Amino acid sequence: MRIITISREFGSGGRELGKRIADILGYDYYDREIITAIAEKNGYEENYVEYALNNHQWQTIPLTFRHSFITPMIIQAPQTNLLLEQKRVIEEIARAGKNCVIVGRNADVLLQEENPFNIFVCADMDTKIARCKERADENEQLNDKEMKRQIMRIDKNRSKVRYMLADGSWGDRKSYHLIVNTTGWKIEDLAKPVADLADAWYNAKENSKE
Amino acid sequence: MRIITISREFGSGGRELGKRIADILGYDYYDREIITAIAEKNGYEENYVEYALNNHQWQTIPLTFRHSFITPMIIQAPQTNLLLEQKRVIEEIARAGKNCVIVGRNADVLLQEENPFNIFVCADMDTKIARCKERADENEQLNDKEMKRQIMRIDKNRSKVRYMLADGSWGDRKSYHLIVNTTGWKIEDLAKPVADLADAWYNAKENSKE
Repeated sequence: MRIITISREFGSGGRELGKRIADILGYDYYDREIITAIAEKNGYEENYVEYALNNHQWQTIPLTFRHSFITPMIIQAPQTNLLLEQKRVIEEIARAGKNCVIVGRNADVLLQEENPFNIFVCADMDTKIARCKERADENEQLNDKEMKRQIMRIDKNRSKVRYMLADGSWGDRKSYHLIVNTTGWKIEDLAKPVADLADAWYNAKENSKE
Repeated sequence: MRIITISREFGSGGRELGKRIADILGYDYYDREIITAIAEKNGYEENYVEYALNNHQWQTIPLTFRHSFITPMIIQAPQTNLLLEQKRVIEEIARAGKNCVIVGRNADVLLQEENPFNIFVCADMDTKIARCKERADENEQLNDKEMKRQIMRIDKNRSKVRYMLADGSWGDRKSYHLIVNTTGWKIEDLAKPVADLADAWYNAKENSKE
């Protein structure tokens, strides 16, 4: 089984890159599907699951805390359960034993025993702002400054969740096989050579076993 | 003209990777050649040039300072001249207009106006120690702890020189197009897909101009 995980800065094009790599290599692709599975199993709204996972503890606790005497540990419980639920879904995907690309959700950490090929995708701020604007609905357009603040907030949360789960830092070169900066690339031009590189990694591993 | 620069952690296999990429793509290759050119032009020993550049200021100044009243600014001068001399040689290579791979020497920073494709090569400490031991002469074998200290010292110097020359940090994802972690790779398996990726970068750039 071959697993490629994609971690990424918000707006860097990591999701598109992951989708294209999956298409090129003929792998299954998981991203939003993981949220859907958690929501269905637990009878939650998808948007709630996504919000709770993305904003894990750092934004929900202070709000609740102001109105109650419950300790932070107990308030964390529902979010922690969602994280565990996410872990369970990702491990289920791995157990299915099919080649796949998983975008986000800390799959690199959660599946480390499977030795996935871990890619981190980044870009410079201007590139990320431009991509976010392109993607946004007309009625949710932010200006550049607001967009930058949003990008930084989301990435800070991603970094914090990872810090909770693993030793290595989010986006640090030690934690990944490959870090790709998409600045100046069209993702469609980049996908093939990155897919080839991940493929070469698994081919070399299999050859060395023979 | 296509320029690929390779920055690297000591012992990560960056030099071998650079050499192989140059072979695969049929590019010129520069590494030690730059030191030789500086030494010849200035009538220095190659080893002196290499030592002075690698240990720029942080180790030579305090030693001299103890025995003199000359200010640090003046003591820095000889080393600074060597850095300028290195810059001159690297710019001359670029002016020659031939496709090339340049390993180390902060070519990514010095040639930034040429928009080179910048690769950073890293590996985990065990991999680097193993590679250094393999490479060392029998009579200069260090134990693992000494080797680790040496690797960290050399990388710290590289990081400091870069810090003097540029904004972005040495080894930080923002400063490079690609960061490759060689842990678990044979460099010969890695060279082709990385060469293809750099090639795709330049092909896409040329196609978009047409």
